Amino acid sequence: MISKQWRLKARPFGETTADTWDYTENEVPSIEKGKMLIKIEYVSLDPAMRGWLNDSKSYIEPVQIGDVMRAGTVGIVVESQHDKYKKGDYVCGHNGVQTYAISDGTGLYKIDPSLAPLSYYLGVLGMPGMTGYFGLLKTGEPKAGETVVVSGAAGAVGGLVGQIAKIKGCRVVGIAGGKEKCQFLVDELGFDAAIDYKNENVKKALRQTCPKGVDVYFDNVGGDILDDVLTHINKHARIIICGAISQYNNTTPVKGPSNYLSLLVNRARMEGIVVFDNVKEYPTAMKDIASWIKSGDMKVKDHIVEGIETFPDTLMMLFKGENFGKLVMKVGE
Amino acid sequence: MISKQWRLKARPFGETTADTWDYTENEVPSIEKGKMLIKIEYVSLDPAMRGWLNDSKSYIEPVQIGDVMRAGTVGIVVESQHDKYKKGDYVCGHNGVQTYAISDGTGLYKIDPSLAPLSYYLGVLGMPGMTGYFGLLKTGEPKAGETVVVSGAAGAVGGLVGQIAKIKGCRVVGIAGGKEKCQFLVDELGFDAAIDYKNENVKKALRQTCPKGVDVYFDNVGGDILDDVLTHINKHARIIICGAISQYNNTTPVKGPSNYLSLLVNRARMEGIVVFDNVKEYPTAMKDIASWIKSGDMKVKDHIVEGIETFPDTLMMLFKGENFGKLVMKVGE
Repeated sequence: MISKQWRLKARPFGETTADTWDYTENEVPSIEKGKMLIKIEYVSLDPAMRGWLNDSKSYIEPVQIGDVMRAGTVGIVVESQHDKYKKGDYVCGHNGVQTYAISDGTGLYKIDPSLAPLSYYLGVLGMPGMTGYFGLLKTGEPKAGETVVVSGAAGAVGGLVGQIAKIKGCRVVGIAGGKEKCQFLVDELGFDAAIDYKNENVKKALRQTCPKGVDVYFDNVGGDILDDVLTHINKHARIIICGAISQYNNTTPVKGPSNYLSLLVNRARMEGIVVFDNVKEYPTAMKDIASWIKSGDMKVKDHIVEGIETFPDTLMMLFKGENFGKLVMKVGE
Repeated sequence: MISKQWRLKARPFGETTADTWDYTENEVPSIEKGKMLIKIEYVSLDPAMRGWLNDSKSYIEPVQIGDVMRAGTVGIVVESQHDKYKKGDYVCGHNGVQTYAISDGTGLYKIDPSLAPLSYYLGVLGMPGMTGYFGLLKTGEPKAGETVVVSGAAGAVGGLVGQIAKIKGCRVVGIAGGKEKCQFLVDELGFDAAIDYKNENVKKALRQTCPKGVDVYFDNVGGDILDDVLTHINKHARIIICGAISQYNNTTPVKGPSNYLSLLVNRARMEGIVVFDNVKEYPTAMKDIASWIKSGDMKVKDHIVEGIETFPDTLMMLFKGENFGKLVMKVGE
């Protein structure tokens, strides 16, 4: 049996290119005691993956040259010598951009394919879902009646954050690129307003759509949009730094928020989050999110691209703002 | 009787110059019912004053063109038609850069000249003292054994912050300009180490002086030093944004912290403070600080310049880093 993989060939400077990756095919070895073979069905594509390619101190070890690229995956156990997993179990974990993976169970957990489509376990019920849930509720502490703004609003984390804020009784404004995405946020996800950063003056649009100012800002993008929001925050506002996709491929230094002194004027705070800190509470979050999906309060949009061979291009869709909903790659044959 | 004043003539672009100010002399009018005449003894010079000259939304109204420059003052009541104040009372308040002020008591409070030198009421027992006390303890939440770094460490707020952090059992590193100030921090104020930003590589010096990383950073300066500290913070670090003196006279946009994504990697927070939010708790802080001064745990260094005519130049000392301790102007004749 052959496994297909994408491996890190060279660390990118700026955007990833064809030179970043190596495509390999390997015969799958036989499974030893304590291990299992997983056939991967879906691979998750997340903005954070860009950071894992940099050889610098971060919240997680960088991917090493020659290694299979790290990625969240959903798969099915096809062969097992592991006590806790048997053939036919569906599992979720960081099993990399490949079609088959061998695992000793580290970081793995079982999922129930009858409860939700498999891809959901990489999105609303996976890392992006947990990121949005804990980032908004624990760090953002939104109160009913407050105004919550979220950038990257049509992405995996942003769409979920906005919908949770609505459930909590907030006024919600999303920032996304393009008319179609903005319409989707308002018409389908129930946001109160959306700002099309590609075609609108964000600062002006914030004044119009947030007449009472911004109490919570969930930032996935950084750059100019972060600065624009900083000009319009309220006293004691909370800014959640979840990511800065506008800056990840920079070949020049990151653009720091010039308007950060608005934190002083407004006694506001800016706080970073890393999803893994909440591992013990994931079950609570998953239960909540599943119940909102069931009740119809939360809608889910996945963007599925087929075929492992598409990986280098599919990953770049994130940084070009081309994904519409949670981006996943279907690799199952 | 003649009162001498410095008034705002024109809003500065960048540094204040001779054109920023008007010097005026006026006959003091007679005092109406409900008012009092205060002879001002000391005028406080604080970095925040630069911000009050800008015509922009902030935590306090800008000073208007033609108005006497706003400043904290200590003075003595020399004539009173006010029920609550009598001749001979010493009072503290924002009575402006002038030798005599008429007040209806708004924002005024009595002080006891037998408890501490008058100038202390503008420093450790005044606005800078309250700023450092609440900023460090309420927003910074330092715990014994943690490492606290403070910039502008030889200034009014910084010196106090470092000494309170020592009292709370922290390792304390101060950042200041010049060998003399750094020696003072270590030898006189008991800091564990000091970094001379004018003659040292701050990033490298932080690694040497904070081998366990930085848990709390009290920032008075912004700019490159904020960025340097961000590279060396610990998980869950707290960064208190008290000021950004390096940026106040900018004629270009403020330099935002390029390394702000360190907040994400370290799940750290950056929070702004404004001293006036703690007015109700000032008495507690003043009691604590007075007791530390009495016990010798806290040392006080004032930098007193004589004569109201020096105002424009004396104010600029703050931005050139020429003050050594709390800068006040003695205007009593």
